[in-house]
Amino acid sequence: MRGIFITLEGADGCGKTTQAGPLADALAAGGREVVRLREPGGTPISEKVRALLLDPANAAMAAECELMLYEASRAQLVREVIEPALARGAAVLCDRFYDSTYAYQAGGRGLPDELVRRANALGSCGLAPDRTLVLDLDPELAYARATAGGADRMEAEGLAFQRRVRDAYLRLAAEEPDRVRVIDASGERDEVTARLLAAVADLGTA
Amino acid sequence: MRGIFITLEGADGCGKTTQAGPLADALAAGGREVVRLREPGGTPISEKVRALLLDPANAAMAAECELMLYEASRAQLVREVIEPALARGAAVLCDRFYDSTYAYQAGGRGLPDELVRRANALGSCGLAPDRTLVLDLDPELAYARATAGGADRMEAEGLAFQRRVRDAYLRLAAEEPDRVRVIDASGERDEVTARLLAAVADLGTA
Repeated sequence: MRGIFITLEGADGCGKTTQAGPLADALAAGGREVVRLREPGGTPISEKVRALLLDPANAAMAAECELMLYEASRAQLVREVIEPALARGAAVLCDRFYDSTYAYQAGGRGLPDELVRRANALGSCGLAPDRTLVLDLDPELAYARATAGGADRMEAEGLAFQRRVRDAYLRLAAEEPDRVRVIDASGERDEVTARLLAAVADLGTA
Repeated sequence: MRGIFITLEGADGCGKTTQAGPLADALAAGGREVVRLREPGGTPISEKVRALLLDPANAAMAAECELMLYEASRAQLVREVIEPALARGAAVLCDRFYDSTYAYQAGGRGLPDELVRRANALGSCGLAPDRTLVLDLDPELAYARATAGGADRMEAEGLAFQRRVRDAYLRLAAEEPDRVRVIDASGERDEVTARLLAAVADLGTA
């Protein structure tokens, strides 16, 4: 049995973290081992890199440095956790993967598209998700949610930034319609979960 | 006055660190501001990345993760220190730069050549040294020197590794003979310094 690699994407405040639990439960109910991960992080080394990325003390970080740190954290996660899990036949559910890097660094920060795509190719070690679920919500609502409890360094970039992030996700979905699905994240939690499950049903998740 | 970017390269134990001081003194005697740097490191963020790279506790680090961390440290150094120094007209003398990544990761560890070259292009933000001085020494002698005081994670790779590193440096010199010069690092310290200075005299360093 081949593993299944599913990634959850979307702007801060879109409900990814809320949905990861019910989605993982549903995948496990189908009989597979489910491995839940969060980027950046997921291995001891990746968590150390995550701490560098999210520490407001590192505000002088150059955009290219930030990009490479995300890729470093990702490469470790792919090699140490995701690839072995897929080889065991597990369903791997990852909260953010390389599409976040594209949406935030190319979309949000305005780094050149090709630069970010090349970096993503390196950091992912060539591994692509089988399906990517973009939780899509009105940017003003998502932003209000994301900043309600205080803003981390990324969230502090503001609403205009979050709009560019969303636009970048929509571009990815247009480019790769089979892999990247845009899911309406408004409404009740269970309704959104049902939409997510419907969008992975063809992968043999049930 | 345009700045000058000079990098010192070579296997561990070749005498780079010993030569950096006299070389910097000679450059300063020519009337320029001299900025001495060491990779990985050279900025607060880069030093934090350096600590991750050199900590033996991180021995489970995937080769691709290590590669991306070197590039992250480098990108920060380029943007925060090297580019501004060159813009002021300084001579920047850097102990290791992207040729080390090629020599150690592609040569030493056996990562694919093209992978490392693409990563180097990203981490250097497109900046190339004006001159690269490879201190060349018999690998057995260099290895004995490098490990005399105990081995860090990189040096612990062994003599065969160091031979592959040297071979990679020699390939780079063959590919880019104008930029990359192989300097005989045997003999007295002052003799080696004189060879290094002769190899940068055409850059307007005097």
